[in-house]
Amino acid sequence: MDKIQLAPQLEVSRIIHGHWRLLDWGLSDKELTNFIEKLMAHGVTTFDHADIYGDYACEEVFGKALKLNRGLREDMQIITKCGIKLMSDKYPDRKVKSYDYSYTHIVNSAEQSLKKLNTDYIDLLLLHRPSPLFDPSEVAKAFGDLKQSGKVRYFGVSNFNPSQFEMLQSYLDEKLLTNQVEISPLNIAAFEDGTVEGALKHRIKPMAWSPLAGGKLFNPANVHEAEVQKTIVSIAEEMGAKGIDQVVYSWLLKHPAGILPIVGSGKIERLQNAVEAPSLKMTDEQWYRIFIAAKGEELP
Amino acid sequence: MDKIQLAPQLEVSRIIHGHWRLLDWGLSDKELTNFIEKLMAHGVTTFDHADIYGDYACEEVFGKALKLNRGLREDMQIITKCGIKLMSDKYPDRKVKSYDYSYTHIVNSAEQSLKKLNTDYIDLLLLHRPSPLFDPSEVAKAFGDLKQSGKVRYFGVSNFNPSQFEMLQSYLDEKLLTNQVEISPLNIAAFEDGTVEGALKHRIKPMAWSPLAGGKLFNPANVHEAEVQKTIVSIAEEMGAKGIDQVVYSWLLKHPAGILPIVGSGKIERLQNAVEAPSLKMTDEQWYRIFIAAKGEELP
Amino acid sequence: MDKIQLAPQLEVSRIIHGHWRLLDWGLSDKELTNFIEKLMAHGVTTFDHADIYGDYACEEVFGKALKLNRGLREDMQIITKCGIKLMSDKYPDRKVKSYDYSYTHIVNSAEQSLKKLNTDYIDLLLLHRPSPLFDPSEVAKAFGDLKQSGKVRYFGVSNFNPSQFEMLQSYLDEKLLTNQVEISPLNIAAFEDGTVEGALKHRIKPMAWSPLAGGKLFNPANVHEAEVQKTIVSIAEEMGAKGIDQVVYSWLLKHPAGILPIVGSGKIERLQNAVEAPSLKMTDEQWYRIFIAAKGEELP
Repeated sequence: MDKIQLAPQLEVSRIIHGHWRLLDWGLSDKELTNFIEKLMAHGVTTFDHADIYGDYACEEVFGKALKLNRGLREDMQIITKCGIKLMSDKYPDRKVKSYDYSYTHIVNSAEQSLKKLNTDYIDLLLLHRPSPLFDPSEVAKAFGDLKQSGKVRYFGVSNFNPSQFEMLQSYLDEKLLTNQVEISPLNIAAFEDGTVEGALKHRIKPMAWSPLAGGKLFNPANVHEAEVQKTIVSIAEEMGAKGIDQVVYSWLLKHPAGILPIVGSGKIERLQNAVEAPSLKMTDEQWYRIFIAAKGEELP
Repeated sequence: MDKIQLAPQLEVSRIIHGHWRLLDWGLSDKELTNFIEKLMAHGVTTFDHADIYGDYACEEVFGKALKLNRGLREDMQIITKCGIKLMSDKYPDRKVKSYDYSYTHIVNSAEQSLKKLNTDYIDLLLLHRPSPLFDPSEVAKAFGDLKQSGKVRYFGVSNFNPSQFEMLQSYLDEKLLTNQVEISPLNIAAFEDGTVEGALKHRIKPMAWSPLAGGKLFNPANVHEAEVQKTIVSIAEEMGAKGIDQVVYSWLLKHPAGILPIVGSGKIERLQNAVEAPSLKMTDEQWYRIFIAAKGEELP
Repeated sequence: MDKIQLAPQLEVSRIIHGHWRLLDWGLSDKELTNFIEKLMAHGVTTFDHADIYGDYACEEVFGKALKLNRGLREDMQIITKCGIKLMSDKYPDRKVKSYDYSYTHIVNSAEQSLKKLNTDYIDLLLLHRPSPLFDPSEVAKAFGDLKQSGKVRYFGVSNFNPSQFEMLQSYLDEKLLTNQVEISPLNIAAFEDGTVEGALKHRIKPMAWSPLAGGKLFNPANVHEAEVQKTIVSIAEEMGAKGIDQVVYSWLLKHPAGILPIVGSGKIERLQNAVEAPSLKMTDEQWYRIFIAAKGEELP
């Protein structure tokens, strides 16, 4: 599996493994260690987390698995995120779900993540969502200190639109390395609202979360979703792909922006499908047929 | 009351007094002079006008009050605007409300404002609204000449979106100092359409007109407005604020973009409330609770 | 008729003749040659094509007319476009209308256009529509090679929004010279979505296709269109214009962005109307009255 260079000292795997639903996989620490080992043997070396995943529990589960094979960390890249304050039994005083991008919160959140993940450094820390109450100077200061202390190597954002991205970037000495956004055949907003163009303009590679639309592509809920599924299924046959998932990964991988799909499954077969996707060939016309089905209308 | 530096030679007060409704206050020239004196004693030294306010009459009323105490001008900053051509008995030939950003209109309008305001210079002249028929070279020439003659010290815009702002700025030698836009808990568009981000990106401080939504926050007209009011009222209690208005000013003042609220009241008590607002403490969560009520849905 | 300088070595005529509907005009090669001669005698020297016009046939018809008077080419500027793949009997394998901005397609399409047009060079090649699958590096390489070989003198785009334009421009050594977009009193989106502002910001002159809304201004289909027509008709009387078309051309020509109307008619009288339009005087208020009718509501 190819490595993609995001910065002089940071390479990630073409397919990223996402741990949003880690708790649903029902793996023991040992089983998770084994799973990670298998993935890394397949070349999937980059793992996507967030402080809040699993009601603030996923990072810790991952950290325990890492402890069982300390050698893994060296060849692995860890992404995590900060900035959302969830309503949670762990924080009974909170009255609403809100965000916090203060210096203190960013630094504390990163330090918490380090502890839970059982690691000395985060490869890539993302701001989880843009906020209407956002002091870019504080963010810049937090990023600067986390970098200097070696706790975080690189920084990026998630779910930012181009104007939010450019505003924040204008306050930072260092280049934001990615914008992790939702992209799937059931959500093509990033292609239409300037997000993908922004990534091309700023020479960053976007990451795509929920590339399979949270499973909706397998269980379409309405006529539109069924039409999209049908198009993907017939292209799967044309390409000789193993299933819907491979076609979708090919569709993302073919894009010149260098989109990095985040595969959030606990099943090794699904990851194997993803790992094979880069070697499949999709024509431009096949790419557009999926896009047109997604859009629900002809191109102008 | 704090002063905010907008340019090396221009400081404005943290709260700006708006004269949109000056005619409704029913003050004699003498009473208005007294009112202005009181405001300035409280540190509110910046006054917001436009050529068209009060069907082209407000500037003149203000000018007469200034005449009664010539010493006031020196410690005061006057903002006014140009570019809208109102339907008015004073201009019987007009067939529609339109705009005019020609060199001649901008210069003439500024000179008219000087006469009416009884002053030799305008501290800050704003283009009142963006226009689809806008020659940025003419604007640049008008701004240049008004600056050189000393008639206008600085320039800005009002109600511009980021692309309009950046386009105009690209034609000007001097930095636009502000973008005066509508912001209130009943109108959060500026937080969502890139306007506030644009201000942060360009390091300008936006001014907020109608921060109390033209009084609608006191008399909600529908369920949504009532929900917003309810949230603000309970936060007023938590903060020990004197009322809805203080909470709203705190909400604006807390924002890192340095938003300058324009308070358009003729009542000294309301201005006193505004003047005290900067010393109140609002938590991040309180800020978000108002934003979420305004949005009418949870944050993503 | 004025010439407009788009680049140091490229002047186009203030009115551009569009060949979208060339096949509908029912002209023999000889008649088309005569028509072109008359237009050029009136100063209309710029002709707008696309590979796909007339189901891939228009360029060839034009090329045959050029062959009958080889002297015309020297004083003429030819615009053509590439990138759309139409469903067509000529391409029976295509399953959907799609786009192709690969290096190979751009270069091949331009070479095809040269052959069909019977010319050695294209003055201005436009990308016909933005694509969600767009590799700006490939475009840059294709443009570079076409330029160096002398096959294409200059480049631009069509139907791009500002973020698409800025993204592509950031990959190109050379300046994109225009953005050809739809603008008419029945379609004012370009004034409201940042397209015209983008043109002003980047100092490019937009071209307006379908300025008469494909004829709908002559045959309004609903109340709104009838209102727009009524406004234009009364302004035609005030201006002493010959008809709706002259008013619309004046409306476009008056705009400070330097909009270049594309007139797509096969009737010499209509072109004469267009040629006279620059000498008509339209007031600012008349311009706004059309804009307000188009918008369907007063200005704010």
